[in-house]
Amino acid sequence: MRKSIATVSVSGTLPEKLEAVAAAGFDAVEVFENDLIACPLPPEEIRRRAADLGLGIDLYQPLRDFEAVPGDVLRGNLRRAEHTLELMTRLGADTLLVCSNVSPDALPDDALAAEQLHLLAERAAGHGIRIAYEALAWGRHVNEYLHAWRIVRMAGHQGLGVCLDSFHILSRGSDPIGIEAIPGEKVFFLQLADAPRLAMDVLQWSRHYRCFPGQGGFDVTGLVRHVLATGYAGPLSLEVFNDVFRQSDARRTALDAMRSLIALEEALLPSGAPPVVPSGFAFAELATGGSAELPALLSALGFARTGTHRTKPVELWEQGGARVLLNANPATEGTATPEETEPGLVAIGLETPDPAASVKRAETLLAPVLPRERAPRDAPLDAIAAPDGTALFFCRTGHADHPDWTADFPRESPVPDGDVTGIDHVALTQPWQHFDEASLFYRSVLGLRPQESMEVADPYGLLRSRALAGGGTRLVVNIARVVGAHQAPRQHVAFAVRDLRALARRLRAEHPGLLLPIPANYHDHLEARYATDPEIRELGLLYDRDERGEFLHLYTVTAGQVFFELVQRIGGYGGYGAANAAVRLAVQHAERS
Amino acid sequence: MRKSIATVSVSGTLPEKLEAVAAAGFDAVEVFENDLIACPLPPEEIRRRAADLGLGIDLYQPLRDFEAVPGDVLRGNLRRAEHTLELMTRLGADTLLVCSNVSPDALPDDALAAEQLHLLAERAAGHGIRIAYEALAWGRHVNEYLHAWRIVRMAGHQGLGVCLDSFHILSRGSDPIGIEAIPGEKVFFLQLADAPRLAMDVLQWSRHYRCFPGQGGFDVTGLVRHVLATGYAGPLSLEVFNDVFRQSDARRTALDAMRSLIALEEALLPSGAPPVVPSGFAFAELATGGSAELPALLSALGFARTGTHRTKPVELWEQGGARVLLNANPATEGTATPEETEPGLVAIGLETPDPAASVKRAETLLAPVLPRERAPRDAPLDAIAAPDGTALFFCRTGHADHPDWTADFPRESPVPDGDVTGIDHVALTQPWQHFDEASLFYRSVLGLRPQESMEVADPYGLLRSRALAGGGTRLVVNIARVVGAHQAPRQHVAFAVRDLRALARRLRAEHPGLLLPIPANYHDHLEARYATDPEIRELGLLYDRDERGEFLHLYTVTAGQVFFELVQRIGGYGGYGAANAAVRLAVQHAERS
Repeated sequence: MRKSIATVSVSGTLPEKLEAVAAAGFDAVEVFENDLIACPLPPEEIRRRAADLGLGIDLYQPLRDFEAVPGDVLRGNLRRAEHTLELMTRLGADTLLVCSNVSPDALPDDALAAEQLHLLAERAAGHGIRIAYEALAWGRHVNEYLHAWRIVRMAGHQGLGVCLDSFHILSRGSDPIGIEAIPGEKVFFLQLADAPRLAMDVLQWSRHYRCFPGQGGFDVTGLVRHVLATGYAGPLSLEVFNDVFRQSDARRTALDAMRSLIALEEALLPSGAPPVVPSGFAFAELATGGSAELPALLSALGFARTGTHRTKPVELWEQGGARVLLNANPATEGTATPEETEPGLVAIGLETPDPAASVKRAETLLAPVLPRERAPRDAPLDAIAAPDGTALFFCRTGHADHPDWTADFPRESPVPDGDVTGIDHVALTQPWQHFDEASLFYRSVLGLRPQESMEVADPYGLLRSRALAGGGTRLVVNIARVVGAHQAPRQHVAFAVRDLRALARRLRAEHPGLLLPIPANYHDHLEARYATDPEIRELGLLYDRDERGEFLHLYTVTAGQVFFELVQRIGGYGGYGAANAAVRLAVQHAERS
Repeated sequence: MRKSIATVSVSGTLPEKLEAVAAAGFDAVEVFENDLIACPLPPEEIRRRAADLGLGIDLYQPLRDFEAVPGDVLRGNLRRAEHTLELMTRLGADTLLVCSNVSPDALPDDALAAEQLHLLAERAAGHGIRIAYEALAWGRHVNEYLHAWRIVRMAGHQGLGVCLDSFHILSRGSDPIGIEAIPGEKVFFLQLADAPRLAMDVLQWSRHYRCFPGQGGFDVTGLVRHVLATGYAGPLSLEVFNDVFRQSDARRTALDAMRSLIALEEALLPSGAPPVVPSGFAFAELATGGSAELPALLSALGFARTGTHRTKPVELWEQGGARVLLNANPATEGTATPEETEPGLVAIGLETPDPAASVKRAETLLAPVLPRERAPRDAPLDAIAAPDGTALFFCRTGHADHPDWTADFPRESPVPDGDVTGIDHVALTQPWQHFDEASLFYRSVLGLRPQESMEVADPYGLLRSRALAGGGTRLVVNIARVVGAHQAPRQHVAFAVRDLRALARRLRAEHPGLLLPIPANYHDHLEARYATDPEIRELGLLYDRDERGEFLHLYTVTAGQVFFELVQRIGGYGGYGAANAAVRLAVQHAERS
């Protein structure tokens, strides 16, 4: 399907927006009036640049406060409209969005609205232009899409149709099934936006919190199905007003936007390949930063070095089903990060039933495939870059049907069988502009299901956190709204432990100082709240419960940007101990200062 | 009155919070449970530190979800309560905040609530502790302050009273006059917070957008009057949950908080000195950054150098009633800013009827008074630092009753009488954390009236803007949510012009390149919208109108961090041409790149 995006959805000047949108592979744009007004280029030049970039200008928007007005107001409105139609001729745009009147001048008179829209459509037809009438969710009298359709049908002009906008329809809770009452040839345009579910004024919600389909809480796909059922054959066009995207790199936002449309299209077509959901973690790869901190931490936790890469300064450390790679030269993996000189997570290996299919899907969804330096004997191992720059490797460990990456690490010693059984989850901090992008990335590329996002108090700010899970893989993505000097560690790897009490007892005895100290005030509170047993305090464990089970966990001290968590899930506990994150952050800040 | 603040209102660890709060001169704190839980210090040590700092612990908060529950739930709740009471004994806090139950366990049974609160009050009395019951705005059954009072009266225990919170009362639109139905001795505590008027879920509103009294849209002073009318003699305590304050420097936030209480107290007491409102601008002082750009711009605009400071490298430039100081060595003025090596605004001179009273008031409101290096013959001139670091001088120009600062600039040439008649307004960009602080500062220290804040689209982000005006002085404070590389100029000085068309004609003829070029698309739009005359396009003017008049304006190119605006107000136009700010920003960005 033809893919379009409103210029307001990305940052920059109008020429910068056009370039970013074209680079992401869009077919067309909607030109937003304010972008044009502020642009020093004449409309003819904008038209030429769009054409050179292979972009159509599928819509010009908006003409506001036009219909259902008294005669004297109409005269001024027609003058405005005539200017807009002339401008569109210069711009080469053939469809004009008219949004329902919000001014106090508007009269609650459908017949008058229809009559004046008919007049406008007639004038527009003289310029070869069509009018797409849209019900704004906060329109003064017309704010439901079926009401807009009623007026369009009443007007009965072939150059007049409706514009449907998923935000305006879904934010009001209207049922989109009524779209099927509209003949496809009268749906002149379809604008798509998602949004988080927020209980707030719909105008503010629309202007600041829209996001790309799949990043919010609306069933945009379901709405598009109803639109396609009418026979609509026009573009899918994104119109997103978002405070974060306004400040983000235009090219990156445009790629994120295109990814959302590809995922949406895939969800619409039964023929689309389903995501290849990873079945768990093959490994976590950490840069050592030239320090001995990480090997010491892993040793203490019961890991052993079981192999060393044939050609690279990378060691394999294992315990039970948990594998950690320690890389002394991480510049060869992932994309460069400013933290790469100190210990930190640089890559994650994911188990997949079909690595080639995983990479193909990632490419389809515009994930950057990373070039790999590989010695001739090394196992092929494909990697993509996640939004935070971490490399994601697609692995198939220990299966005869695929080369095994562990073969590159000739075995030096057996895998110890200790309390750690595997990797439970990995937590990654995203740049603050990329939280929604990260959710969509992991959801669409890996098929993980996002859970509700949560807020955690940090002594110096707020942390927003969202878990994504599926097929045995659990990721937690965080963004920190924290002032510069007070950043918490960026990443952690959580190991699943069989008996956390036993492990904690051993660690406290043998490695004092290895575990993050937990304030006595926390355990006072825990006992008062949950009547927990004294051993939890004695061992310095953290505790949480949900309706399905219990959670014991604890944290190691931090090495560079990374630390380890040890977790034991009891029963069907499904969370991540978020209730304790504020305590953990406070102690980490105290340890650092 | 005793002044207190909840520890949640400022950033940092609990000891850091206590220090910041004490440094700002507060008498006491409310200890917020989460701050204590995350703190490694035992309660006795927190008590000792607070005492050493001269701070009382006037409240511990909150005990949640206690009352109106079935018997089995009550047992667990009493265990929690007993723990909290013991903790408070260690902490030395004698009042416990119990907020109304939000859990699904709560029953809609006032008699049961009263009975269980009576039981709690009885237990608390055994520890010498009082219970202050508060209606949360989102309480399950109890969410109105009069409902909480009904239950407290029904319980009839002398150790049980109500806690009133201005946010919970005013956010629901409840009339605070009903407070006078409560005997003062039953008002155990008063928590104050303001908030901007937002149409959103009240829980989210409360957790993220509270601000200090005078920074939002609530009549907090009116509410406090009702509370004092009951005979309440307890503390005024600030409880503010705010995402920005969470990330700000704790000491600065605490001072801002104290300023809000001083201003509130002043508004309550008829004896308080009213603000000395400046009657206009004495001068704007700009650092030249060693460049000839600013003198060249001022010359072109019709200014002349009329004097040079006796002892400092500072020139006085004048035209009509507009005075500009050009300072070649601004390190002697204001506080240091990273921009001081390039041209920028460093100080503003304000005309006041009584400079000494102005400074005294500023000191009372915790504005930093700046030390002044002054040669023996120089006129005394007092200055304070505004929140953005700009120095504010209090002047009395041309009055025999006060030394005149212009006497330090022996006259070299007469003041030219051109089109510029004075300074209309000055616009300052604030660090993003200090927008609410800046509003309160200018309102309380200078007595300016804040207008509604507005949002302006920037090609690379959003700008929030608020004008403050009074007595002939107009300031515009902006914050820019824009990514680093794309900052717009930080400041501008707007000169009032008698006939902007004439001035523009002269400038276009004699100084091409001096004025910011305005896109033709803007004028196309203007003509369609307002049917403006062709001369406005020809002269490159910007135009706006409101219900009282019209506004013509234009901008010069930028020198360093500063540019000039030329404005002509026709009729009673009261705005600042905000509708055109997005165009101005787009052109400025284009000029810079």
